[in-house]
Amino acid sequence: MEKKDYQSPVVGQEISCIMKNIDVSFFDDNQKLKQLVIETLNNSKFGILNSVEHEFSPQGFTMMALLSESHFALHTYPEHNAVYFSIYSCRGPKDSEPVFKELKEKLKPKEILFLNDNEIPLV
Amino acid sequence: MEKKDYQSPVVGQEISCIMKNIDVSFFDDNQKLKQLVIETLNNSKFGILNSVEHEFSPQGFTMMALLSESHFALHTYPEHNAVYFSIYSCRGPKDSEPVFKELKEKLKPKEILFLNDNEIPLV
Repeated sequence: MEKKDYQSPVVGQEISCIMKNIDVSFFDDNQKLKQLVIETLNNSKFGILNSVEHEFSPQGFTMMALLSESHFALHTYPEHNAVYFSIYSCRGPKDSEPVFKELKEKLKPKEILFLNDNEIPLV
Repeated sequence: MEKKDYQSPVVGQEISCIMKNIDVSFFDDNQKLKQLVIETLNNSKFGILNSVEHEFSPQGFTMMALLSESHFALHTYPEHNAVYFSIYSCRGPKDSEPVFKELKEKLKPKEILFLNDNEIPLV
């Protein structure tokens, strides 16, 4: 396909939030948490092109996944029992919702502070 | 420092937007665009722990930087003359603004669609 013929979808969706008051055992094993995220992204057929992660001292874990359809980010704040969650998909409207819903089901936060839940017009 | 003593800042800031109608030459050289971003993050004293990038076929470039202070993401849509920009810093209130402003000065978009410009309470 030539460049001039290519058109990405014209609407994407971003959901960012803080999930609060989850079971504290999720903070004990960052690799297990990462696997939970990857499983969730796979279930929604997102293509993980690459991912990076970092464990902070004395605590806190951050990971980002570069997706064929944009990106995912998660940061933990064990000291506040809080997890920052963000997904942006440019695959179309409402496309980020299944990942948000599935991870919410898994982590069962008692409170969610929404930062952003927007559909994104590119044109 | 022991885990129990550590407290991250309790407020962060996320800015996400679509920058539209920039000089199209920015889409010609993705590595130059990446250097522009890295320079901008460095100017605001963000610590880049790791970064990932991908060039899509036939076009489109995506990069993410994992920061000591959270994360940065950028995706280009040359076919729409649009760039998705997102930065989240957990270093404190208004902390993401200098990067947004500097990159806006550099890219000079004729239009900006804000998706999110929120301060984020973690507690």
